[in-house]
Formats: sequence, C-alpha cells, structure tokens
Amino acid sequence: MNEFELIASLTKDLPGNAAVVAGAGDDCAVLDLGLRDRWLLFKTDAVVEGVHFDAGATAAQVGRKALGRCLSDIAAMGGEASSAVVTLALPKAYSGDFVSGVYAGMAALARQHGVAIVGGETTTNPERLLISVALVGTVEKGRCVRRGGANAGDGIFVTGELGGSRLGKHFEFEPRLTEARWLTEHFGIHAMIDLSDGLAGDLRHILAASRVGAELLREAIPISPAAREQARRGRAGRPEPGAATPAESTHPGMVGSGRSPWIAALTDGEDFELLFTLASKDAVPLKDAWKQRFPELRLSCIGKIVAGSGLALRDREGVRPLELHGYTHFA
Amino acid sequence: MNEFELIASLTKDLPGNAAVVAGAGDDCAVLDLGLRDRWLLFKTDAVVEGVHFDAGATAAQVGRKALGRCLSDIAAMGGEASSAVVTLALPKAYSGDFVSGVYAGMAALARQHGVAIVGGETTTNPERLLISVALVGTVEKGRCVRRGGANAGDGIFVTGELGGSRLGKHFEFEPRLTEARWLTEHFGIHAMIDLSDGLAGDLRHILAASRVGAELLREAIPISPAAREQARRGRAGRPEPGAATPAESTHPGMVGSGRSPWIAALTDGEDFELLFTLASKDAVPLKDAWKQRFPELRLSCIGKIVAGSGLALRDREGVRPLELHGYTHFA
Repeated sequence: MNEFELIASLTKDLPGNAAVVAGAGDDCAVLDLGLRDRWLLFKTDAVVEGVHFDAGATAAQVGRKALGRCLSDIAAMGGEASSAVVTLALPKAYSGDFVSGVYAGMAALARQHGVAIVGGETTTNPERLLISVALVGTVEKGRCVRRGGANAGDGIFVTGELGGSRLGKHFEFEPRLTEARWLTEHFGIHAMIDLSDGLAGDLRHILAASRVGAELLREAIPISPAAREQARRGRAGRPEPGAATPAESTHPGMVGSGRSPWIAALTDGEDFELLFTLASKDAVPLKDAWKQRFPELRLSCIGKIVAGSGLALRDREGVRPLELHGYTHFA
Repeated sequence: MNEFELIASLTKDLPGNAAVVAGAGDDCAVLDLGLRDRWLLFKTDAVVEGVHFDAGATAAQVGRKALGRCLSDIAAMGGEASSAVVTLALPKAYSGDFVSGVYAGMAALARQHGVAIVGGETTTNPERLLISVALVGTVEKGRCVRRGGANAGDGIFVTGELGGSRLGKHFEFEPRLTEARWLTEHFGIHAMIDLSDGLAGDLRHILAASRVGAELLREAIPISPAAREQARRGRAGRPEPGAATPAESTHPGMVGSGRSPWIAALTDGEDFELLFTLASKDAVPLKDAWKQRFPELRLSCIGKIVAGSGLALRDREGVRPLELHGYTHFA
C-alpha cells in the first residue's frame, strides 16, 4: 500500500460536520464557518530530518521549508494565508540556537506573506527533528479553486521550471501565493494543485478528481537548469558509453544511469510550482497578461485536458500513454 | 532552559497580523477573521511514542489521546471545536491495521463532539510514531475565556479528581467541552486553563497571566483514587518502616519512597480537567447549579485568588508558600 492508497483508505470514512465544504483529498480542507463571503482553508504538513532535509541543512532553511510547504497549499486553492501554529519535535541535544534559527527562517517567510505565527509548541522526538506546521487561510467562495474542475479542452499550465529540486530549490522555493491570487482575480481557473510530488503524479490527482484525461506536449515541459545539472552529474558519476548528448530518452526504461532531465521534470518532487487548467480560449490572453505582470517567472502551456482518463504524451513520433508517476513517499 | 522558557524565548518575537487577537501563550490562539460575533480558535499538539504513550498502548487509545488533548484546549477557552487535520509520522514497519486503529480512536472521539477530521497526512518518522493534530474551533467573542482574567477575591475551581493519570486517565480522559460551554453560558468565568502539566504548574500560568497570587486549601484538593493507588504501589514496591498510614506529607522533601497522593494531585500532568476562577459571590450558585447539571462530575472550590504573586498553601498549621511546580517536559 503506497502513501496515496493508505491515505485514501484512512480518509474515506472520516467524521464530518455541517461546516465541511471539502475534507481530505484536496490541497487544503475547505470549511464554511459562517464568514459572509469566504471559506476557511485549513492545512497541516510536516518535515522530518533525514526525509525532507538532511543534517547539512541550516536551521533557517528547515524552518522556511516547513512553513513554505503549507503556504504553497493555500496558494493552490487560490487563498490568502492568515495564521500558522507550529510544533517542533526534537531531540534534547538540539541547541536553543538551532531552534531559534528554525523560527527565524519561518518568521522571515511568514512576514513576507503577512502570515502570523500564533502558537509554538515543543515536544520530544528523541532521534530527529520533526516540524509540523498547521495553517489557516481564507478564500472568497467564488475564487476557491479545487482539483476537480478541469474540463476536456482546457489548457494545462505550469509556472516556473521543473525538476532537480534537490539541488537547492526544495529549500529556496517561493510559495506562489501572489501568482495564484492574481490568476483567480483575472481568469477563470478550473482546477489547480501545487507540485509537491512531481508533475506526472500531481497532474494525475487533477485528472482523477475531474474524471478526465490529459495529453502533455513533451517539448513544452519547462525543464529546470537544476534538472539538467542533476542529469549531467548522474552521468558523470556513472559514465555510459555513447552518452555524449543529453540522454533525454522518451522511454524511462532506456534512461540509463543518469536520469534524463525531462524525466526529472515529470517526476521529481518539491517543485512547489502551480499546475492549473483553464478554458483554451483564455490561454493566449493569460500568456500575454502574465508576461506583463510576472516578467521574471516562466509560464508554460504544457498540454490539454481530454475526455476519458489517463495521461498521454505527444512528441514528434506521435501520442502514447505515459506510465510515469510522481514521487511516492511510501513506495 | 526548560520547555516554558524555551517557548517564551521563541514566541516573544513571532510575526503577527491584524487578525491576531491572542497569539502564543494561551490554550489556543484567538483570531478575528471577520466572523460577525465569533473568534476562531486554533491549536496544535503532538503525541510521541515513548514520551506521551508507550508501546503497550492500543492504536485507538493513542489516536483518541492525540485528538483529546487539542479538544481539551478548545474547552479551556470556552469554545466549540469544529475541524481537525492530522499528521501521522510513522516508521515504515507500522501496519495499516495499526494506523486504521489510530484513526478509529480519533474518529470515535471526534464524532462524540461533532468534530470533523478534514485532512490526514502521513509521513515517515523512522524510529517512532508521532501524531500531530491541529484543531480549529470558534467561540462567541463575549464567551472566550483566557488565562489573564483572574481577579483577587475570585474563587478557584477544578473539575474532577486529580493525579495518577498514568494509571489510565491519560488515555481515558474526557475533554470538558460540554462543561466549559455550560460554565460560560451561565457564569462569568474570569480565567480558565486545562490541566495538562499539573495543578501547581497550570495554576501558575493563570497567576502569571493575571498578575495575581493564589492560596490553595489543602484539604479541598480533590485527590483521585488513581493518585492514592499510585502512592500505595510506590510504597509497596519500596517498603518503608512505619509507613502504615497514607504518607500524605505536607512537605515534598518528606514524602519518602512513595510520592504522596496529594503531591501527585498537585503535580502529575495530563488530568485534562478544567481549572477556572470566578467571582466569590458566584461560588455557591455555581456549586448548586453544577450539582444539578453534572451530578456525576465532582466540582471543587480549592482556594482563592489573592493580590500579589505566587502560590501559597493553607492547612491546619497555617499558610506558607508552595514551591511545587507542575510537570516540565524538558526539566
């Protein structure tokens, strides 16, 4: 049973109440607590030493990442982040300075987005640092974007460049709160998710929730320099005869020792970019307006939503099913 | 630096925003998100294997406790619990059955209090199970009870019986949500806290926040049968000459090998009862009304709030300062 199957089995029978608009299964839970025109967004997430970061990470990087992951989920719903509470679970040997550094990293990112940190608990986790963050935000009822709204014919867009986040981006990513707010203010976004488990995996969440399929255009997928660097290092570490040109194989099984950059772009986790769909008629106006508003952040139309199910890839040789999935924590 | 000092140093400089009514330092954070007559309550808490429960605990007990601790904090503010999100951090060896059992324990308690569970994440914590729960609730602005409202002359009350929670109550406790709602509906409660760190320690939180002192009446402190049983087992395990009668010494240093039941009642953690103060003129009406409404739950007036600072104990021999503190996680 992998992580998604485990969560699915656990969450299918959870208690609800009249306030629940959307429970487990989207980037955030959505609650109607009686605000006149807004819903509450609610999310929790944890980072664990040796799993989400290693001992070489600075305290501030770890704190920033712990909060940033939750902020990215609020962004994916089109929401505004309000307040966070934090639990630090740590071995007794951790110094007060390290813990202060974790909070400093969190606080800097929180201030950048106007987020309050309204509770800080500590407890003991003897072997390793674990930071759990919970975040509340709000979103106008008419601007809440969920995973299940994609329609056949929609264009599929992604912000930024994908893959290779382990070379640094998994600490340095910018939660796309401003961009998501702008998107929902100016365009009818049908479905959105943040890329935490990799494009292939996260797009499948949209497809499943929307009961549609998708066709990706291979040459449109924005590959990050880090994904290319990662592939270069991989090949250098394990040299392969004849691998002089970038090994961008279309067949995962043929990638060889260095994982190709475009496979990384499809499957690496922790990009924390926005993946969303909107009506194809809006695609060109969106691209034009985006360039004006966010000239330094790439926006790519990477394919289209189609009727049916499953994920297909189109390249010069035609269209065929794409079997790749994203990163699975328990795989 | 103990837990309280560490938290204080971490939380004195946290980022805020216009929504924050009360940040870190009370049982829950209090947020004004624009609800007409209510505030949002927000709390997170974690339980860790080997720290808050041991390997002998059943999955359902662990899940129930993880949620119950947060519910108890919502009760302490006079609030109504709405929705919870959960992170399970666990070793890969944990069985799906165990994890389902954790959720079953949580879900049963959630249903009992009308609480929805709206998110369930899992991640890896290789050495031990850790469950982090975050909870939102709401409270009428006029019924939110904080720690800082105690006045000299107030009576100090506590629900239930105290001490010895390790013999079972730390799994079986009932979060006092119904009782707290009834209290704030019918009486002017000045200050309230839930007993998680022991009466002596938690009362000191009220005293510090309210800038007052307190005098406890020793014979009024409700000692649980578990605290007596715990003391008996302690003495039986380490027999002491002449210890034939219960060793309820008034001097902690003279307790001997078995910790006396009343010291346990003052310092054992995890009672999860309500400790609150209200004007002395309301004390008798409260006791009368309580007996009608909650005939099976003891309510004790254990002393009074006084001007000044510090905690004093009154018994047959007079009044003297009480140096005992509650349970300190990092002591």
